[in-house]
Amino acid sequence: MILVVTPNPAVDVTYRVAEQRIGETQRVLDVARRPGGKGLNVGRVLATTGTDTHAVLPLGGASGRWIADTLDELGLAHTDVPVTGETRTTVTVVDDLEHPTMFGEPGPVVTPEEWATVTSTVERLLATGAVTVLVVSGSLPRGADPAVVGRWVVAARAHGVPSVVDCSGAALLAAAEAGGAPVFSVNARASVSGAGASASVSGAGVVCKPNRSELLEATGAPDERAGALDLLRRGATAVVVSRGSDGIAAHTVDGVVEVPAVVGVRGNPTGAGDAATAGLVTALGPGPVRVDEAALRTAAAFGAAAVLRPVAGEVDPEDVRRFRTDTVPTQQHDHRTGSPA
Amino acid sequence: MILVVTPNPAVDVTYRVAEQRIGETQRVLDVARRPGGKGLNVGRVLATTGTDTHAVLPLGGASGRWIADTLDELGLAHTDVPVTGETRTTVTVVDDLEHPTMFGEPGPVVTPEEWATVTSTVERLLATGAVTVLVVSGSLPRGADPAVVGRWVVAARAHGVPSVVDCSGAALLAAAEAGGAPVFSVNARASVSGAGASASVSGAGVVCKPNRSELLEATGAPDERAGALDLLRRGATAVVVSRGSDGIAAHTVDGVVEVPAVVGVRGNPTGAGDAATAGLVTALGPGPVRVDEAALRTAAAFGAAAVLRPVAGEVDPEDVRRFRTDTVPTQQHDHRTGSPA
Repeated sequence: MILVVTPNPAVDVTYRVAEQRIGETQRVLDVARRPGGKGLNVGRVLATTGTDTHAVLPLGGASGRWIADTLDELGLAHTDVPVTGETRTTVTVVDDLEHPTMFGEPGPVVTPEEWATVTSTVERLLATGAVTVLVVSGSLPRGADPAVVGRWVVAARAHGVPSVVDCSGAALLAAAEAGGAPVFSVNARASVSGAGASASVSGAGVVCKPNRSELLEATGAPDERAGALDLLRRGATAVVVSRGSDGIAAHTVDGVVEVPAVVGVRGNPTGAGDAATAGLVTALGPGPVRVDEAALRTAAAFGAAAVLRPVAGEVDPEDVRRFRTDTVPTQQHDHRTGSPA
Repeated sequence: MILVVTPNPAVDVTYRVAEQRIGETQRVLDVARRPGGKGLNVGRVLATTGTDTHAVLPLGGASGRWIADTLDELGLAHTDVPVTGETRTTVTVVDDLEHPTMFGEPGPVVTPEEWATVTSTVERLLATGAVTVLVVSGSLPRGADPAVVGRWVVAARAHGVPSVVDCSGAALLAAAEAGGAPVFSVNARASVSGAGASASVSGAGVVCKPNRSELLEATGAPDERAGALDLLRRGATAVVVSRGSDGIAAHTVDGVVEVPAVVGVRGNPTGAGDAATAGLVTALGPGPVRVDEAALRTAAAFGAAAVLRPVAGEVDPEDVRRFRTDTVPTQQHDHRTGSPA
């Protein structure tokens, strides 16, 4: 079972209007509402592909109740931690003329006591022995102590469960620091097959999975490799960086594995990174795992399949299968020399 | 007790952003959520001023539950008719630079069976004998038969209760047609004190209360007087037209009573018309009533008090008292001659 924590879930609302105009009353032609927050996108993609998934999320107010009811309808198992604040809403306004405009509410203040309940819920589910991978995905609500993410990673490691963390800022650093990888050396349980050939991950390590701009922002590093090395130095077992149309890469201290994005896919890129996370997770499976070329190809195939869907949090499993076999050969680099492997 | 029907309630959300921009992701700095729809604005203003008020409204989904919970918190009595569709949301985006941008969802489809339950709920409350005035305010959801508004007016008349209807389009015409006033003659129970001096209303008639543009749009008339005469011809007992900063007027077949808006009031005009409706209703009271200068002055005072509040659906009773005594002398016209009275 994949355990997915969404620290700041949202009701994602999309309004279609004839033409976006500031300062006017605009009739909404079409409304779409769905449970959002990156973790729920990951969880919904996993559930779509038949992967046993369980979501943990703080929920409050009418928006929180709506998310709970909708997850029931979607058949995504979930344990909710009730919070006093109102779960946030995001409103995206689209037309056929301009780029979408997105309004993001800051989200509720979640109290330390409420976070403690999230942590005890994660620990309780880990204690069942059914969890194979822990996923933490999405921003923290304002005022949250980033250390909570580290606590979940430590709890997972205590049960021999690897974590995949797609957070930003201090939460990403906290996740890396909770990973426990020896400084500038891969985890003792990892099997290393040579620089650039694969990025190996202990069954109880942490894979940080930011996109490139999140990685640079969180670490202050000048480039992707330097940022990844920063996280590895802090304790991450591997750093997987989604690069949008530039593909996806897995960094360890020894090198990088890269696969390009699936070519010729056009559509809605929102949520493609979340689908890639879901793909990565399905490729990890239980026990000590490797972020190898096959895992990255699976992640890229999930991301491409998500682009073909009009909304985030969905893939057609048939598209995933097709893209997994379609992908072009891997590009590998040894970053110690800078030359292609 | 004032019975207020809101056919298409809404969760009114206001987002404050630093600067409205199309095609960008905008952080919402501040979120305000309140129960909306014109009828709920009227009901909340009435409740604020200590008037015994009861709201009837179709509610569905998480948004509907939120409205019900919030009305409980506000202490506004309400009877909800559960509907399958999701109660609509309106999102207004404000900054300090541009006019507000408003996104209005169309609202749920309410089935004929659900409307029948609204009607039977109105009839049940009228049968208690506690209702002094029926108010119907706001748009109908898409697909609704405008005849439902007429049914509520007829039910009120059967209990000797006058109605005040602030609707648009076909619903406004249906309300007028249900008013039962003899063609081109005031209701038999009305006391007429002369052209232009007052617009008298039977205890069981209907006051149509559109704003000027709604009146012209619904009737297709070239000017306000012609539009009012159209509604009076259809059966309305009086037509009260809110004109924003141009004041408020009451039309009967015999003439017009006008009072100007309170001068020097600046602020938020949203909901001022709804507050004016609330003021008008408090001035009507039970039994045969007159829309005279005093009633219009009260309506204008409520409208002005609402402008001073940052959000719709609120007045400070102290502001109402102050504006009621401050208003300047009435302008009266005899529309048969066109000369000032």
